[in-house]
Amino acid sequence: MPKLVDHDARREAIAEALWRVAERDGAEAISLRAVAAEAGWSTGVVAHYFAGKDDLLAFAFRLAGDRASARSRRRAGAAREPLRALRALLAEYLPTDGVRRLEARIWFGVLDRAAALPAMGEVVRRGYAAWGAAVREGVAAAQRAGAVPADRDPDAEAAALIALVDGITVQALASPERLAPGDQERMLDAALARLAGGG
Amino acid sequence: MPKLVDHDARREAIAEALWRVAERDGAEAISLRAVAAEAGWSTGVVAHYFAGKDDLLAFAFRLAGDRASARSRRRAGAAREPLRALRALLAEYLPTDGVRRLEARIWFGVLDRAAALPAMGEVVRRGYAAWGAAVREGVAAAQRAGAVPADRDPDAEAAALIALVDGITVQALASPERLAPGDQERMLDAALARLAGGG
Repeated sequence: MPKLVDHDARREAIAEALWRVAERDGAEAISLRAVAAEAGWSTGVVAHYFAGKDDLLAFAFRLAGDRASARSRRRAGAAREPLRALRALLAEYLPTDGVRRLEARIWFGVLDRAAALPAMGEVVRRGYAAWGAAVREGVAAAQRAGAVPADRDPDAEAAALIALVDGITVQALASPERLAPGDQERMLDAALARLAGGG
Repeated sequence: MPKLVDHDARREAIAEALWRVAERDGAEAISLRAVAAEAGWSTGVVAHYFAGKDDLLAFAFRLAGDRASARSRRRAGAAREPLRALRALLAEYLPTDGVRRLEARIWFGVLDRAAALPAMGEVVRRGYAAWGAAVREGVAAAQRAGAVPADRDPDAEAAALIALVDGITVQALASPERLAPGDQERMLDAALARLAGGG
């Protein structure tokens, strides 16, 4: 019987290699060649799975989004109060440590290319749509539990909260020393307190 | 008498050429060679003013920031009410048309490199510090005029407003069709209304 290639395992290994390259050399160092070298394969093997650098970057972006999303949903699911669950859906995206900072750098590193490339833009849009839906449901759940006034519009509140988290992230990436992890979380908590207070 | 080179005029011409390249081909197309070709000079002439691509990108970033800043201060200076002035200091950074969209793309296109390069990071930090100081003073002026409750912390409010504008911009760049100019301004106005209402 011929030995079959396990394609899922290969993609997983490529993902791990890509992550190590980004961690060590920055998101801009991601390329078919660099990822192949890191995985110990020829560039041709990686090229079998990814058409080019943009395809690889879209994969990196999805990976960063999936990791933050999985972590935030896990934390939200474990929360006992709806406002804590909502907070988890947002706070897990803030660059408060090395892992989250790398995810954020990849996310914002891809964003500029997304504006230029339609296929990439689709990946970005889907990422924001999924995050938006989760946060909107988090706001609505908090409303049903009476933790957020019923007259607030979940769509508008979710959009504002996500914009705030993205903006905090942008500032934290630009000036880490001006926006320490504690400061980032305080800004988010102030917004959540205002939402809960009906301000 | 030898003909002297007007260095300021040359830098200005390089800035204009750089802007045209970014407008036509995207921020990622900015390079010494592309800008020189656009200006009709040899790469050597541009290399006389800029050490390399990162130096040129830092210049582009400063230029984008300076343009948005000059426009917002002009509009703020012409406003009759302090809340309108504060709004101008923020709204002029939103990517609501082609010019502002290009500035925002350059800003966020540089941000990822800024995280990797110390010299670039300094330019980004100074840009945010100047913007932060202007918005903080805008909040304080609105407080002195009685348009914003006196118990609000101008530093915290300015940081939250700037994070919101950056976050709106990020989402608008990623998904222009989900966040039209009118939606961007509505999100900002909701935050300003909340600030004025003391919520």
